[in-house]
Amino acid sequence: MRRRAIFLSAMQVSPFAPTSYPELPPIDGVRLATSSCGIRYKERTDLLVVELCEGTQAAGVFTRSLTASAPVLAGRKALKDGSARVLVINSGNSNAFTGKSGVHAVEQVCASACDVFKCKPSQFYMASTGVIGEKLPYEKITGALPQLVPALSEKSWGNAAHAIMTTDTYPKMATRKVMLGGKQVTINGIAKGSGMIAPDMATMLAFVFTDAAIPSPVLQSLLTKANDKSFNCVTVDGDTSTSDTLLLFATGKAGNAAIKNASDPSLSGFAEALESLLKELALHVVKDGEGAEKLVTITVTGAASDNAAKRIAMSIANSPLVKTALAASDANWGRIVMAVGKAGEQADRDKLTIKIGGVVVAKNGEADPSYREEQITGHMKGREILIETDVGIGSGKATVWTCDLTHRYIDINGSYRT
Amino acid sequence: MRRRAIFLSAMQVSPFAPTSYPELPPIDGVRLATSSCGIRYKERTDLLVVELCEGTQAAGVFTRSLTASAPVLAGRKALKDGSARVLVINSGNSNAFTGKSGVHAVEQVCASACDVFKCKPSQFYMASTGVIGEKLPYEKITGALPQLVPALSEKSWGNAAHAIMTTDTYPKMATRKVMLGGKQVTINGIAKGSGMIAPDMATMLAFVFTDAAIPSPVLQSLLTKANDKSFNCVTVDGDTSTSDTLLLFATGKAGNAAIKNASDPSLSGFAEALESLLKELALHVVKDGEGAEKLVTITVTGAASDNAAKRIAMSIANSPLVKTALAASDANWGRIVMAVGKAGEQADRDKLTIKIGGVVVAKNGEADPSYREEQITGHMKGREILIETDVGIGSGKATVWTCDLTHRYIDINGSYRT
Repeated sequence: MRRRAIFLSAMQVSPFAPTSYPELPPIDGVRLATSSCGIRYKERTDLLVVELCEGTQAAGVFTRSLTASAPVLAGRKALKDGSARVLVINSGNSNAFTGKSGVHAVEQVCASACDVFKCKPSQFYMASTGVIGEKLPYEKITGALPQLVPALSEKSWGNAAHAIMTTDTYPKMATRKVMLGGKQVTINGIAKGSGMIAPDMATMLAFVFTDAAIPSPVLQSLLTKANDKSFNCVTVDGDTSTSDTLLLFATGKAGNAAIKNASDPSLSGFAEALESLLKELALHVVKDGEGAEKLVTITVTGAASDNAAKRIAMSIANSPLVKTALAASDANWGRIVMAVGKAGEQADRDKLTIKIGGVVVAKNGEADPSYREEQITGHMKGREILIETDVGIGSGKATVWTCDLTHRYIDINGSYRT
Repeated sequence: MRRRAIFLSAMQVSPFAPTSYPELPPIDGVRLATSSCGIRYKERTDLLVVELCEGTQAAGVFTRSLTASAPVLAGRKALKDGSARVLVINSGNSNAFTGKSGVHAVEQVCASACDVFKCKPSQFYMASTGVIGEKLPYEKITGALPQLVPALSEKSWGNAAHAIMTTDTYPKMATRKVMLGGKQVTINGIAKGSGMIAPDMATMLAFVFTDAAIPSPVLQSLLTKANDKSFNCVTVDGDTSTSDTLLLFATGKAGNAAIKNASDPSLSGFAEALESLLKELALHVVKDGEGAEKLVTITVTGAASDNAAKRIAMSIANSPLVKTALAASDANWGRIVMAVGKAGEQADRDKLTIKIGGVVVAKNGEADPSYREEQITGHMKGREILIETDVGIGSGKATVWTCDLTHRYIDINGSYRT
């Protein structure tokens, strides 16, 4: 698939944009179509419709924001049923903080989709991404839905990944094949970022589809667990969207042996593949973080608990002072010490060890006497930075991913609405 | 006092730098001297010594960082005694994360100061600000101390405010006169910022002096309370320094009637003046926040509690998305909604009211139908921005101050060590 730079006009493409993208294979029971219905952007697709076959099971994770968008509230409600038939996603307008009119807009799109796809309201899911607080022109969506039916195709994965983009500079997609209950099953995922990225959740929108036959409660358990190790471990700017949505749909068409519960040992390969796919998508979200020039992996070990380790790692990952130093390729490890100190988790200055690019820069409460900055100058100038912190007091550990804070972040976010 | 732009060479001066500075009057019992001892900066003063008369009482508030600097640890210990005779402050090196050598450096400066000023180690206070993790060349300080004695003067307040600067673009000082126990007393304060500014505490260093006679425990109570309404209500980048220190010294030379305890009604005027002085200094820290172009006042009312209101206000104040929108004079109030939602405090989207520059932009969960962006375009382009959020569910309230996030923040913090 070629990079569609035409969408990106004024936008500088992320240095991490892949030179080629994975071909996502068809998934039996999933058909997709996109269109340009002019919600906000001109000359680019902004609507994705996914038709799911009868019997499709659903799972989802949503933002924990207390000011969640209308589609998020509707999605949470629909999930109680556990089945799904249609997913509608628009970019350009998040339908968040739009009050009653926002709820009404979701209801109208739902009614139209139920009519077109002959399904129940509880089988309808919607996600919207874009500017907050402006009324969603839902008539553009309801007007487009019937016309999209003839365009539905099992092959439109690349177009789908494009249609859900906002400030993303490249589409994000991943695929896996894995054995489950005697059959090979496929998992496809698409996602979009790329600011307002922080747990919980880290992605704004991600959608994953599989032909595996897995009942909704089991699917939910798998998704929650995999999400904790992937999207909930990435941060771009510490901000949490009102619209964050991760949905997983299983059509059951692979015909694998029945799965009884989440502890079924036959699920291990699938669970692993799902986590790996989510992590691939989550890392794309970081790499395409607004203005990102560097991918930063932060590991924390030796903390009082895994949760403490994660909070310390996130404190480092979200520190503007750490992120601006990284943008300048400056090995200012004092700021890492500062971020550990402000995390509020148990720490002992004199037991801290900090490594950058595998080189010990500080230990026992001071700079390592043998450390010379030249040792890591090359690493600091690279695209991928590794920061390892050992707290030295326990066995808790965590890994999180972030990007640097550059001038482009400010440019993008200062001009987002203009 | 003229602005000493000579110190600021490559630095662009904050647009909020005063055109004139207050003359700080002498305080009986306080003498100051500064020198250039070459710790890091060239051709600028980097050492301040303050001699305090016998009987001076002390109070202090320090960073809550778990990786606090050696001078902070020593200061906490000294405060148990409650008396003070000498304060030594250096800029250019924070003596933080310097292990045993850092502790040794403080001990050496302490021994030298006790010798020169004929006092006990518990009457010695030190504060250091600057780069983290590099050994403090304390010999430069101990070498300079005896030579500073002849230079001690009651009038060197302006020089003192300059000597403690790092990336500050202007010196910060304030003064008050107030009646206490039948006598007029004076309060002088100096402070420095200007990145790594967040509660708790917000300032990196602030020192306040008065000739009032107030015993140490009462002084501590007054300081803690005033700090909560001033320095702990400002944030530049959400980062917390390892060195934050606020000290208050009372020489007792004013000869006011004895103060029994913190609830003594005769203290009300002094308490008010102290809070007002700390707030003036704290606002200077924000106005001189790294790269600041706008001073942003954020009030939250109608929250479940005052603490909840403060957390919501800080969530707005620390959001990079809000701060970059402000830098671009963009009234992107959707990001304020987002920040309220991510604060983790009780909120109800449909009861939120948001005002910018006094104009209602959103209420009842959606944009105010009568709001037109033109109404606040002028306000958004100004130097001072007012954001008011009413949560609509209780009576908790808080006000915090922050600045915008600009390209200059990135420039300053990417090049800090080079």
